[in-house]
Amino acid sequence: MIVLKTALEIYKKKTRKSAKLFEKSKKTHINGVSHNIRFFEPYPFVTKSAKGKFLQDVDSNKYVDYWMGHWSLILGHVPEVVKKSVQKQLNSGWMHGTVNKMTIELSETIQKAVPVCEKIRYVTSGTEATMYAVRLARSVTGKKTIAKIDGGWHGYTSDLLKTVNWPFDVSESSGLVDERHVVSLPLNDLEDSLEILKSVKDDLAGTIIEPVLGGGGCIPADKDYLKGIQEFVSKNNSLYILDEIVTGFRFRYGCLYPTMNLEPDIVTLGKIVGGGFPVGVIGGKEEIMQHANTSKQTKSRRAYIGGGTFSANPATMVAGQNTLLTLKKKPVYSKINSIGKKMKKELSKVFDNKVIVTGRDSLFMTHFVKDGINEIKNSADAANCDTKLLHKYHFEMIAKDGIFFLPGKLGAISNAHSDSDVKKMIEASNRFSANL
Amino acid sequence: MIVLKTALEIYKKKTRKSAKLFEKSKKTHINGVSHNIRFFEPYPFVTKSAKGKFLQDVDSNKYVDYWMGHWSLILGHVPEVVKKSVQKQLNSGWMHGTVNKMTIELSETIQKAVPVCEKIRYVTSGTEATMYAVRLARSVTGKKTIAKIDGGWHGYTSDLLKTVNWPFDVSESSGLVDERHVVSLPLNDLEDSLEILKSVKDDLAGTIIEPVLGGGGCIPADKDYLKGIQEFVSKNNSLYILDEIVTGFRFRYGCLYPTMNLEPDIVTLGKIVGGGFPVGVIGGKEEIMQHANTSKQTKSRRAYIGGGTFSANPATMVAGQNTLLTLKKKPVYSKINSIGKKMKKELSKVFDNKVIVTGRDSLFMTHFVKDGINEIKNSADAANCDTKLLHKYHFEMIAKDGIFFLPGKLGAISNAHSDSDVKKMIEASNRFSANL
Repeated sequence: MIVLKTALEIYKKKTRKSAKLFEKSKKTHINGVSHNIRFFEPYPFVTKSAKGKFLQDVDSNKYVDYWMGHWSLILGHVPEVVKKSVQKQLNSGWMHGTVNKMTIELSETIQKAVPVCEKIRYVTSGTEATMYAVRLARSVTGKKTIAKIDGGWHGYTSDLLKTVNWPFDVSESSGLVDERHVVSLPLNDLEDSLEILKSVKDDLAGTIIEPVLGGGGCIPADKDYLKGIQEFVSKNNSLYILDEIVTGFRFRYGCLYPTMNLEPDIVTLGKIVGGGFPVGVIGGKEEIMQHANTSKQTKSRRAYIGGGTFSANPATMVAGQNTLLTLKKKPVYSKINSIGKKMKKELSKVFDNKVIVTGRDSLFMTHFVKDGINEIKNSADAANCDTKLLHKYHFEMIAKDGIFFLPGKLGAISNAHSDSDVKKMIEASNRFSANL
Repeated sequence: MIVLKTALEIYKKKTRKSAKLFEKSKKTHINGVSHNIRFFEPYPFVTKSAKGKFLQDVDSNKYVDYWMGHWSLILGHVPEVVKKSVQKQLNSGWMHGTVNKMTIELSETIQKAVPVCEKIRYVTSGTEATMYAVRLARSVTGKKTIAKIDGGWHGYTSDLLKTVNWPFDVSESSGLVDERHVVSLPLNDLEDSLEILKSVKDDLAGTIIEPVLGGGGCIPADKDYLKGIQEFVSKNNSLYILDEIVTGFRFRYGCLYPTMNLEPDIVTLGKIVGGGFPVGVIGGKEEIMQHANTSKQTKSRRAYIGGGTFSANPATMVAGQNTLLTLKKKPVYSKINSIGKKMKKELSKVFDNKVIVTGRDSLFMTHFVKDGINEIKNSADAANCDTKLLHKYHFEMIAKDGIFFLPGKLGAISNAHSDSDVKKMIEASNRFSANL
């Protein structure tokens, strides 16, 4: 018998059916995928099913999943209560196309937990939610410039597709026509950020910030930074938008902003509040949201925001409601936050000074430092770490340990994980560390 | 007993629970709804469930539904085969966040039926699909201007939010920053349209057209018109995009374009191909779609298109696949097209020369003519009809007959409808006509 040595060899051997199916997938899909980041070399495995903390591929390999549906599945895959409620709902329709009861119920739940949501509008994705938030800010203020964060990811909307990936001074895409109305700030550097905001203050419609940078490296924003930006924005009659699509209901029952005494004008939600079904939410103060009231505003003055065919569909509403009710009832947060903290601590210990583990509570990301980086306070710091080595680390765990991170992305602990998963991860990381 | 006379009185009496619930809905949602068009006066009923051809409200009133989930439910509400397949799928996950088998299967089905889909990218909504189609056109051509149709509705994307609602020369919304790169053409007027296209030809990235105007009045585009536009666009090295979100798999098993010998570069699909679950599809020729391959293109040259968290989720994929397989197997089109034709003919007869019924096959819309309009060939003609009377007609049927159109919108026949529904509609229309 040949002794298999490399992760690549092991992966190829154990994912033969995936290899064949992915060839098929490449025949029908661009790069074989339906989301750019789902591709990794040599080919991503093809998923057959998911349950609890596991993804299972078509070769019947099981992976402890830390990707967890783009971090949306805080209860793990297929939590019984959510599954059953949706299965039941399907008997009386998944697409009414009209006002329904389930929407009112979910909104009352969200409103209680997220007080800024004086009015809510459901849409179908986070990309739509941030697009509408920006449109609202421009509509309400009559100004055009939006400030985002270097490395901030708010979905693919044309309105915010700038400075997402390193290097930030290179355009994200051809085919964009209006990049000039977006400026970008370095996270956690208040002085430089305020300088940039001052330079555009007369046309500043608003700022949009994730309280923890998600795609940009799992980096929490400092409270003082967020406060400082809010103060400037508020004095300048611009809107303060917090994108809590990743952070909403992730660390506590509600949003992150109240824990920092922030007062956003608009928040965007998604992921967890749909229980893994397609959803986006724009919530905001009454006086702001009324700009989108098509019964009260004239055609050219209104902020014409969605909707969409699938908005507030009963399947999503029921999945979201049952997810939130479960989070309210069960001690999910104390459990997953504790596992996350332990994970962070243990990973830092294993890799010693070779890594910085960013994140908070149930979100974490291991950055392999180089070039004397000793702090990761923004996306530029994260991008200057050894991202190739991170990909290698993640891929080795996929191949050798049955542990799945989307290579290069942060990990999310769900209620289906347990302390034993920390142990498993530490064993895998120890082996990887020994060969560095 | 008091004899109830007006539709308003009848409606209010029979929808008392809805009235109360909608008050609640107004407390949490802008204008009480999550899609602008779902509101109608005095308040929309609140839906409890749906099955077959019926919507049922919280007061237990049943309505024969012609809105059919924004026209996405060609098999009616809750078709057994789709319901069961999704219920089963939920046991093994509704959000994998990775490449899955179900996606490959649906794509192969779509590809066979819609040959232009040499490569496919799934997204979460039609709004996203058209946004990406436009970005692709701009990326591939290096030009910026997009031509759409007066009254053409491609979702709320900032890139196409222009000339949707009458009057077309008034902006659709405040808060838009780039309306100058969109020009707009009068449907079915080739001469005028070509004049406009010529005036922007050096910067023309592409045209986007619905083969049947959906939101714009259910008006089929003439074959010669579509051919003429295609010819100009093709000679000008611009892209020809057909938005078949409404028309795809609506009239036949596949798109409408092959029946007109058209050769689009890109088509967008949605609604029916997701079986009523959230979906958007961009399909196009290999060489065009490869511009979006992030493994092959540099950061600034690529067309950076989605994706999204919920793209190609297993629930949508399974619902879509089972809907399309049913459409392939069963004689759905001959049935619904025949009912639709009968409906159109009978309605024209009832209202005599007071209306023009537009549409084709299973889609139809009754326009009450005024000011000597004797033809409806574009959205301006439709907007100049008596739209108030149309709303009244639809509302009367909701109140008195248990027939539901979203007031002012076109109707869609589903496989759950039958000839008896034509009879019912004609009876209701006869009564309405008698009082005109």
